[in-house]
Formats: sequence, structure tokens, C-alpha cells
Amino acid sequence: MKTDDQTDDIQAPSKAGWPARYFSVIFTAQRTLSDEDMYSLTSERMVELAQQQPGFLGLESVRGEDGIGITVSYWRDRAAIRAWRIDVEHLAAQQMGRQEFYSWYHIRVAEVVAHRTFDASAAVDSQPDASMYDASGDRDSGDTSS
Amino acid sequence: MKTDDQTDDIQAPSKAGWPARYFSVIFTAQRTLSDEDMYSLTSERMVELAQQQPGFLGLESVRGEDGIGITVSYWRDRAAIRAWRIDVEHLAAQQMGRQEFYSWYHIRVAEVVAHRTFDASAAVDSQPDASMYDASGDRDSGDTSS
Repeated sequence: MKTDDQTDDIQAPSKAGWPARYFSVIFTAQRTLSDEDMYSLTSERMVELAQQQPGFLGLESVRGEDGIGITVSYWRDRAAIRAWRIDVEHLAAQQMGRQEFYSWYHIRVAEVVAHRTFDASAAVDSQPDASMYDASGDRDSGDTSS
Repeated sequence: MKTDDQTDDIQAPSKAGWPARYFSVIFTAQRTLSDEDMYSLTSERMVELAQQQPGFLGLESVRGEDGIGITVSYWRDRAAIRAWRIDVEHLAAQQMGRQEFYSWYHIRVAEVVAHRTFDASAAVDSQPDASMYDASGDRDSGDTSS
């Protein structure tokens, strides 16, 4: 049996060149025991397609042995997420997801308001943004224009 | 060698009882080849401790065979995240993380503005929130009070 473990070989995105504020889609899902080949084909095609969407910034995806996976994709704004959601090929994949691939899933849209990175090889341990854990920060000062 | 794959046995959180708006911390990390037992002990202790924090809502965590993991924790507000960040035991674990456990990581704080769930066993395929993919929604209508 083919192992279901996988991590897409897309590097964890850094902040360089990204807008100060952007959006994430947190997709948490439990795979069924449905055919792995069909799932892999569909999943890989969706990553390829998402990357071509206007406003796509990056993607991180991990699945564990028990079939639970988390995929987080990053987008410039909510309009980009909406456009991706109603892409015709993506709509077909979503239907396959509900009928075949997943026993449950959660999709959360979340606005990224702070980002911190550590990289041992670069000996980088960035200090938190001034706003990072500051609940009193001015929420509207970031670039959230679309 | 002990496999590094794991999914915390905390169910993917549903929306029931959660505030309309809440915050997520998206933690993406690459494990080093450092001792797995010490890492597991620390990791499990941090999950236990996080669950006891005021404002903690839930947690999802997956690690793949290549050592890349994604953990998403959910919090009532940013003040709760800040308090957790500066917890003394957590600070010690963070230092271990940089010195031993991780070759890189990203931490993103993101405000959840929409949530959709599918559950095949319940034949539930919730329609998106009215606001879900609506970039023009009133961003301040949710309960984000702390």
C-alpha cells in the first residue's frame, strides 16, 4: 500500500515580497480509504492550478499516517480566494472531495496579521513584529487593499 | 527509530460555542534530527499546557515523514496568544525549539473570519457563511471583544 504521507515540495513561504496583510485558507481534512491514485492526481492538479491563480502567494501541506492533513494556502486578498473557490475545475474537485476523498473537513479563511520566522542556517531569529502579539494594535494600518 | 508521524488526538474543532471571530496561530516547522524522545516530551507538554491557557479554543497538528509539521492552534483573542507566548515554561520550550528541535519555522497569527465544515457521516455540507468569501463583508460585526 502506498503511503499517504506527503509534503508538497513547495518551501514554506517567507515574508519577502508579500503584502503586509494577506489571507490564509486553513484546510484540515480526514482522508477516507478511497483510491489513493485518483486522490493524488486530483490533489497535485489542484496545487498546480492554485499556483496559477492571480493573488496566490504560497502553500504548505502535510498529511500524517492516519490520513489527517492540514493544507494552508496564502492569498493576497479574499477576492482571490473567492475566484479560486469558483474555478470550474476546482469546483469539480471539491465535489470529488465530498463524495470520495474526505470523511470530514474544515475550511477556515483567516487574515494573517503577524508573521515571525526562524532559520537556524541563517542564524536568523527575527524579533516579533511590533504588532505581533499586540492585541491593541491598529488593525487597519496594514495593506489590505485589493 | 520511532516514527515522527503524529496527529494529536484532539478533534478538529467545530464552530459550536466558539466566538464568531477568533484567532489562529499557524506554526509551520522543519524538525532537525535531534533526539525524538526529548522533542515528544516537550511537544506533548506544550499541548497540555496550551489547553489550560485562558482563551484556548482548539488545536490541530500533523507531521509528515520528512519532518515538516503544521500545527494550528485557535484562540479567543490576541491577548490570549500573547499570554501563552510569554508563559515561562513555554519560553523555555521555545528556546529548545530554536537550539535543538527545528531547522526553521514560521509562526503566523491570523484572524479567522469565516469557517465552513463538511462531515460525510452527518451528511452535512454547510453552505458558506454569508460572509465567507465576501471581501466586502463588515469586518467588525463579529464578536472579537476580549
